[in-house]
Amino acid sequence: MTKGYFLSVEGNEGAGKSTALSMAAEHLTGRGIEVVMSREPGGIAIAEQIRSIILDKDNTAMDARTEALLYAASRRQHFVEKIVPTLESGRTILCDRFIDSSLAYQGYARGIGIEEILAINQFAIEDTFPDLTLFLDVDPELGLARINANKNREINRLDLEALGFHQRVREGYLKIAARFPERIVRIDANRSVEEVLESMKQALDAFLARKSRVAKHSFGG
Amino acid sequence: MTKGYFLSVEGNEGAGKSTALSMAAEHLTGRGIEVVMSREPGGIAIAEQIRSIILDKDNTAMDARTEALLYAASRRQHFVEKIVPTLESGRTILCDRFIDSSLAYQGYARGIGIEEILAINQFAIEDTFPDLTLFLDVDPELGLARINANKNREINRLDLEALGFHQRVREGYLKIAARFPERIVRIDANRSVEEVLESMKQALDAFLARKSRVAKHSFGG
Ligand SMILES: Nc1ncnc2c1ncn2[C@@H]1O[C@H](COP(=O)(O)OP(=O)(O)O)[C@@H](O)[C@H]1O
Ligand SMILES: Nc1ncnc2c1ncn2[C@@H]1O[C@H](COP(=O)(O)OP(=O)(O)O)[C@@H](O)[C@H]1O
Ligand SMILES: [Mg+2]
Ligand SMILES: [Mg+2]
Repeated sequence: MTKGYFLSVEGNEGAGKSTALSMAAEHLTGRGIEVVMSREPGGIAIAEQIRSIILDKDNTAMDARTEALLYAASRRQHFVEKIVPTLESGRTILCDRFIDSSLAYQGYARGIGIEEILAINQFAIEDTFPDLTLFLDVDPELGLARINANKNREINRLDLEALGFHQRVREGYLKIAARFPERIVRIDANRSVEEVLESMKQALDAFLARKSRVAKHSFGG
Repeated sequence: MTKGYFLSVEGNEGAGKSTALSMAAEHLTGRGIEVVMSREPGGIAIAEQIRSIILDKDNTAMDARTEALLYAASRRQHFVEKIVPTLESGRTILCDRFIDSSLAYQGYARGIGIEEILAINQFAIEDTFPDLTLFLDVDPELGLARINANKNREINRLDLEALGFHQRVREGYLKIAARFPERIVRIDANRSVEEVLESMKQALDAFLARKSRVAKHSFGG
């Protein structure tokens, strides 16, 4: 049996990842590909337990590196229990955020360092990077506005502080996209849903065409 | 204020670490050094929470790498909340097991690889290795016999399987001692308590003499 493809979707809050994900799944299904959607911790009991330590509001003493190691541990368990078995069953996995979120948020925006976060995550995923990552690149202000759309309020000082952080996250993503150019496709997510989906379909079809050429090569000689 | 010293004691089960630790503390106190004893997770709430996930008997699906990342996360928090503040207050910390236990047990005996476990632990401790590590090197069979001494029973097949594992742990420690020769002092722990303590005191005094020479050099020009 051939292995399934490992695809991830990345980007700032409000970039349109969740919207994109289900559309991408639909598109791939139409191409005859069996798709499983997931996001960490994805209902994996051990991964959920680890997340609950990270999210526990009483854990104010938690160090940034402890948190990074816990995210990597949670990722590892989700990877072993869900991603690997899905790929080995021949199905394709479509993951809402994966390693690049840690690189952008903790490695770059929180200042621990992209290479250092990469090291502990490579330990977690044993070099099984996604085959393709769709990076939905949105202006952070627009992304936050989309999320706050129905809240109907003016932007305050707290939002602005948050904005600085989200801008660093975006800078982080741009650096990571430059670090992994074969894997990460940047999609301008400032446009309408229809335009974003069109670019996404093109990226997916280009990926599938490349894969089928590789497959023909390896089977046809 | 001068920083305190960071000391650790390592070795197989029954090597005599706990016995040695309090004796070492007494010896150092006699030399005018203020000593704090600790062991991971050491009452640090977040570290304890992480350990309880590792030790939860229901978590049979836990992957070896998830476990290794959780140990590193727990170590990080104990390091940040307890070891660093102790050292910065000028006191010496004496730790019952530290990074080398992960290298020996998970890196070598469990087969993940010493260098890979080292990478995630360097992330956790940011290159603050102990200044001195006393490796109590015991024949694993003798170590287990010491622990089982009062159980008064014959060795069975399960014990023998465990013995193979503990022998790999010892091999791991020997490799790590060779990898970090300036930091790790091997002490033959197959001897009587008195003989082991004598060697330990010699190692501690040699370390203190070395440190005071270094201090004289840096202050005296
Ligand atoms: N390209 C787009 N243009 C305008 N609104 C969008 C676009 N993509 C998503 N949205 C809307 O923005 C909000 C956030 O989208 P979502 O997919 O949840 O983002 P994410 O998962 O990246 O945080 C949703 O209300 C969604 O309908
Ligand atoms: N050198 C020694 N010779 C004989 N017995 C020892 C020696 N060192 C320790 N013991 C005994 O062996 C048992 C295990 O010692 P302990 O210090 O708890 O080992 P560890 O902490 O390394 O597992 C204890 O009952 C202790 O009194
Ligand atoms: Mg979403
Ligand atoms: Mg002990």
